[in-house]
Amino acid sequence: MTDINKVIESLDWQREPYGLYEPIAYTLASGGKRIRPTLALTAAEVIVNGGLINGSAIDDVLPAALALEVFHNFTLLHDDVMDRAEVRRGRPTVHVKWNDNTAILSGDQMLIEAYKLLAQIPGDKVQRTLMMFNEMATGICEGQQLDMEFEHMSHVGIDDYMRMIEKKTSVLLAYAMKIGGYIAGATPAQQEALYEYGLHIGLAFQIQDDILDVYGDPKTFGKAIGGDICCNKKTFLLLTAMENADPESKAELLQWMMQDVQNDEAQGSKEKIEGVTTIYDRLGVRAIGETVIEEHTSIALSQLDKLPQNDATMRLRELAEKLVTRKS
Amino acid sequence: MTDINKVIESLDWQREPYGLYEPIAYTLASGGKRIRPTLALTAAEVIVNGGLINGSAIDDVLPAALALEVFHNFTLLHDDVMDRAEVRRGRPTVHVKWNDNTAILSGDQMLIEAYKLLAQIPGDKVQRTLMMFNEMATGICEGQQLDMEFEHMSHVGIDDYMRMIEKKTSVLLAYAMKIGGYIAGATPAQQEALYEYGLHIGLAFQIQDDILDVYGDPKTFGKAIGGDICCNKKTFLLLTAMENADPESKAELLQWMMQDVQNDEAQGSKEKIEGVTTIYDRLGVRAIGETVIEEHTSIALSQLDKLPQNDATMRLRELAEKLVTRKS
Repeated sequence: MTDINKVIESLDWQREPYGLYEPIAYTLASGGKRIRPTLALTAAEVIVNGGLINGSAIDDVLPAALALEVFHNFTLLHDDVMDRAEVRRGRPTVHVKWNDNTAILSGDQMLIEAYKLLAQIPGDKVQRTLMMFNEMATGICEGQQLDMEFEHMSHVGIDDYMRMIEKKTSVLLAYAMKIGGYIAGATPAQQEALYEYGLHIGLAFQIQDDILDVYGDPKTFGKAIGGDICCNKKTFLLLTAMENADPESKAELLQWMMQDVQNDEAQGSKEKIEGVTTIYDRLGVRAIGETVIEEHTSIALSQLDKLPQNDATMRLRELAEKLVTRKS
Repeated sequence: MTDINKVIESLDWQREPYGLYEPIAYTLASGGKRIRPTLALTAAEVIVNGGLINGSAIDDVLPAALALEVFHNFTLLHDDVMDRAEVRRGRPTVHVKWNDNTAILSGDQMLIEAYKLLAQIPGDKVQRTLMMFNEMATGICEGQQLDMEFEHMSHVGIDDYMRMIEKKTSVLLAYAMKIGGYIAGATPAQQEALYEYGLHIGLAFQIQDDILDVYGDPKTFGKAIGGDICCNKKTFLLLTAMENADPESKAELLQWMMQDVQNDEAQGSKEKIEGVTTIYDRLGVRAIGETVIEEHTSIALSQLDKLPQNDATMRLRELAEKLVTRKS
């Protein structure tokens, strides 16, 4: 199996002007789960049956896998500017460590670097892959736009929320699978199964993310716990709570939401996080979220039955199951 | 000849979420000279000899020509955020009319839209065109980075400045020519001549831009006159003035630069613009700039001799000559 971290480390960012490329190196070196390139490579391995892909086919997919990871990190970089997030993976975000302009411009260059990597796959696959990649990238921008619009909307339903996270998170995992499979020679039906697998683990993944933001361990989660609560972010938990709340709990929730706090160590933010979490606990929204996660995990797993069965398929099965119980 | 404005108008941005696409439509509808797509199409016409290109070949180049225009407008959108520019082509910039986040995200989507257009050219040309486009895009980001770094540098030489504008402005015109020619079937030598033509009219174009910022007619220029002077932007005029100034003029220039003014109608900014312009006049920096413009125009024109001679070549000749005397 390709060690994707080693490949990412081997990318050379020692280029002038350093001010443009250093923030890219910083962002890519900050770790993360590397789920997207892993999915692309594993999808390719599923297709090149037997669980063992020959060297040349991995070489074919690798640039696209890297492009997906670079693209993902670009979205984090720009999202952090837009969300004014100060910490990412336990480190200051680029706009905090440098400034907004650096985050904007190095982010732009990072997006271009993703397309540079994409141009390195075999020539006869470039056009179709480029089209899929563009669809994916469009979905993500549309998802981020919806996410930002939700902030100013008084009512957002769970359905709206699911459509938003499908674009903002799932489409990237779905296309990671599909692109990896396509370059490795998957049939249209196989590409579809790979896509659906990615889509549904993506949905599960995002809801788990919302849960971890409240119930995660600050040591492993990398971000401050309760950030979503502090800024009234319309997460799966909050929207489910609003839909399921008795009038009293709803009033209590709305009252907490009117309290404007920063996510710092101040008493106000602590109280708000504790207060909202208590309501979540009372309404059992975590359990509701976990049920939805299991549903999507199950749909994802069922896609794997349509694909060749080998070591790589097994790893996708394990990955889907691990996502449900992840801590960070 | 294709009416590029009509084609740009025909692009459909009535898509949801509207908040993402409206600023893109707004930016593209604000006009501009459409030089980049015109160059790409004209380069193609030069190659498909006789000055008349058949319909199918124009169809081949058109998506790339549009991609270049969309990309250019993306750079303006993000640059205006970074430079805190409030007016562009006589209208409020996107971050003023909407907000910074909208400008960042719609800009990102606009960059992706450029790549979507690029994916529409004939499949066998996509990989190479994508590579050229990526090179171009990288040059522009590097150029913008250098431009921003210059702000905080006490000494910037004319050579540094020329390298910066080569990246920030010229490379896009150069690749517009090369990509248009390549898709139309230009030989490597022809591609090179097309590239060099674009590069040198780009250099001439940027220096003319610096001159217009000071000496332009506010009615036709679209931006406020003297903006570069107000914010001490290291333009061809300022750097030439610094290099050529007698000690007294230099001291006077530095004194003006220490006066921190906004480019508004206030007395302070008027005085600074008049004061610096008087020094420019005394040192004759406008004439020096015009000589350099003529040199690059002449190099650009000499490239045309290496290409097929037809109506399109004639138009490139006229364009180069018109750039030197443009008013906006």
